[in-house]
Amino acid sequence: MGAIITLTTDFGLNDGYVAAMKGVIYSINPEATVVDISHNIEPHNIREAAFIFSTAYNFFPSYTVHLVVVDPGVGTNRRAIILKTPKAHFVAPDNGVLSYVIDTLSPQPMPNSGRVTLGADAQVYAITKSEFWRQPVSRTFHGRDIFAPIAARLSLGMMAFSLGDRVDTVTTLPIPHPHRTADTATGQVMHIDNFGNLITNIQENIVITTGQPVNINICDHTIRGLVPTYAEGKGLIALFGSSGYLEISLPNANAAAFLKAGIGDEVTVKPGGN
Amino acid sequence: MGAIITLTTDFGLNDGYVAAMKGVIYSINPEATVVDISHNIEPHNIREAAFIFSTAYNFFPSYTVHLVVVDPGVGTNRRAIILKTPKAHFVAPDNGVLSYVIDTLSPQPMPNSGRVTLGADAQVYAITKSEFWRQPVSRTFHGRDIFAPIAARLSLGMMAFSLGDRVDTVTTLPIPHPHRTADTATGQVMHIDNFGNLITNIQENIVITTGQPVNINICDHTIRGLVPTYAEGKGLIALFGSSGYLEISLPNANAAAFLKAGIGDEVTVKPGGN
Amino acid sequence: MGAIITLTTDFGLNDGYVAAMKGVIYSINPEATVVDISHNIEPHNIREAAFIFSTAYNFFPSYTVHLVVVDPGVGTNRRAIILKTPKAHFVAPDNGVLSYVIDTLSPQPMPNSGRVTLGADAQVYAITKSEFWRQPVSRTFHGRDIFAPIAARLSLGMMAFSLGDRVDTVTTLPIPHPHRTADTATGQVMHIDNFGNLITNIQENIVITTGQPVNINICDHTIRGLVPTYAEGKGLIALFGSSGYLEISLPNANAAAFLKAGIGDEVTVKPGGN
Repeated sequence: MGAIITLTTDFGLNDGYVAAMKGVIYSINPEATVVDISHNIEPHNIREAAFIFSTAYNFFPSYTVHLVVVDPGVGTNRRAIILKTPKAHFVAPDNGVLSYVIDTLSPQPMPNSGRVTLGADAQVYAITKSEFWRQPVSRTFHGRDIFAPIAARLSLGMMAFSLGDRVDTVTTLPIPHPHRTADTATGQVMHIDNFGNLITNIQENIVITTGQPVNINICDHTIRGLVPTYAEGKGLIALFGSSGYLEISLPNANAAAFLKAGIGDEVTVKPGGN
Repeated sequence: MGAIITLTTDFGLNDGYVAAMKGVIYSINPEATVVDISHNIEPHNIREAAFIFSTAYNFFPSYTVHLVVVDPGVGTNRRAIILKTPKAHFVAPDNGVLSYVIDTLSPQPMPNSGRVTLGADAQVYAITKSEFWRQPVSRTFHGRDIFAPIAARLSLGMMAFSLGDRVDTVTTLPIPHPHRTADTATGQVMHIDNFGNLITNIQENIVITTGQPVNINICDHTIRGLVPTYAEGKGLIALFGSSGYLEISLPNANAAAFLKAGIGDEVTVKPGGN
Repeated sequence: MGAIITLTTDFGLNDGYVAAMKGVIYSINPEATVVDISHNIEPHNIREAAFIFSTAYNFFPSYTVHLVVVDPGVGTNRRAIILKTPKAHFVAPDNGVLSYVIDTLSPQPMPNSGRVTLGADAQVYAITKSEFWRQPVSRTFHGRDIFAPIAARLSLGMMAFSLGDRVDTVTTLPIPHPHRTADTATGQVMHIDNFGNLITNIQENIVITTGQPVNINICDHTIRGLVPTYAEGKGLIALFGSSGYLEISLPNANAAAFLKAGIGDEVTVKPGGN
């Protein structure tokens, strides 16, 4: 079956690790279509992987299998999971790397646990049935020996319940949402992209009054008003980007370098005008 | 249909942008074969994209769809086009990123416009029929929302005329061709490759007298004569490379770093000997 | 036929060279599945290519065609070969880039030659039949003009003997194996991976007495004992990694940067305890 399997890892593109995973996948499902999302996640950076994955996975066809392996706890007792939704299967360590996906699945927090239960549309399975893994299983590369074989079998149409045991909860990381007072929305920089654009967590619906002028503050700079595209305006500009988030950009240049901005930097939106 | 779609962008390999485009393509044509040419074009560098694309596209089979998205004007009134030739379809912003392709299609300049008309073998279509785009269309990521769906539909066999409106002209950037006086050909460095080889715009037919000795000057260095391969000669060498252009190379080392050479540096070829 | 072709080169991901090879492959076998192992081998570094390739090729299905092009001698009289084993075809310059594969094929050294003969299971063919190459053949890019067409034809089921002439010997580089005295095993760092892990050439069977405590010395640091996973232990740790080699790691950090370690640095394993 020609199902799609996407890969997101922190393995980089210099080593043979990604190819070893692909070799295992094609050995089980020669008809799979394997698509890289990114392998340049900063090593062990679960939050970055979660964010970048969130900007891409939703554009794939139904029944895609998404494999996300940023797994600093490999070989310890951290759980490996399959998350099944009506649209896709997600195969990953249970460490929060799927947090943005989970955020769309009606999560209900379990107090003091960093874990949530999900709405009726989604099911979580602990990957437990070792007869479906590559043997012998390395203690340091479950991407190759456990996750890749499980993703390949899902792409062949095997059911998640035959590969693992249903569990009730899943780990999620707190996703920083913007907060607002009477006249100010305060968010933060979530990601800096290849162009140096600063992508914030402020979505279009939080901006104070649609169509009214706003001022955006970041790193002691004030940007007056929003523009529709990267090519308009002079100096620093602010606009809503392709993932629906407020972005700060510098036309034909690198806003992050200009501002010396970093992940987590505060961004505020206030009424502007005059 | 298993048609090939190539991708050339300045999106880099860290973000999810390339994968979002691939997800859109596979959602429309699950049987497409998607091949990366390069995603490491310098951001907004249309000339670099045009050159690198020119070294690869011609090796693909007939009916390949080539998608080139280096698009600093995204969301403005710059046109998006399909260029149809007897061998392939090219989908790109109308900003000159296809200049080397156009240079092979009998272009006739329109005075003072940066635009050309093409010979009878090639047709240009403005991408206008929004019912074939991904909706809603972001103003900042037409690669995902317009170009990828159009490329996918072409790969399914849809005709260019059903996706857009025929137009007469297309934008091209001036391609620097070498010039020659009585005894000297003068060109420039067009590209520095992964090995540090300096690739010029001087082709084999411009070299003064085939088989006669020549001296090549670059960055205050003189190279006497041509060698057939990278492994021959000592110190700096000059040879005709795999794209037919004169290259300056340093065996087992990086000529660009050694010479502190850059794009646009002048290269001359004169009669040598004795 | 949907056979797999893997690619390992030092061409990098910025230029169009890898894509040109893929275009040639798909022009001959549109049904091939092309998988990148790595294109970020250091330019001309045959040893690095040989090592990285060795960590990935064995995970691919039977009948995979492996194309390895790190070829500083391109265009000279170095031989181009097909190595056929019961499991796969390998297409490469005859310069040692397949040394780790050859090491598994009962090699018998030819004195003072850097060449070996192989056991009965493996055959070597010189690539000689130019009617199966892309014409005209560049003297500087045999990856595109000779190796890619040959790999594509093998993936279509053509026999190696119809593409070249059987030869008796193949070039191999000396692979540094660890040596041991009464109580000490001495090896070296073979590779530094994307995480900064130092991968040595010491395999599990050389460690002195299974289950007994050991001390590992590297760069004037002593590591006491082995741990099972990257997440256990404090400070520098040592463990057997996914390719079966002893690795030195620093949890959630970069051991190579911390130790200022490099390829070839000595690693010793001695009895520990108390």
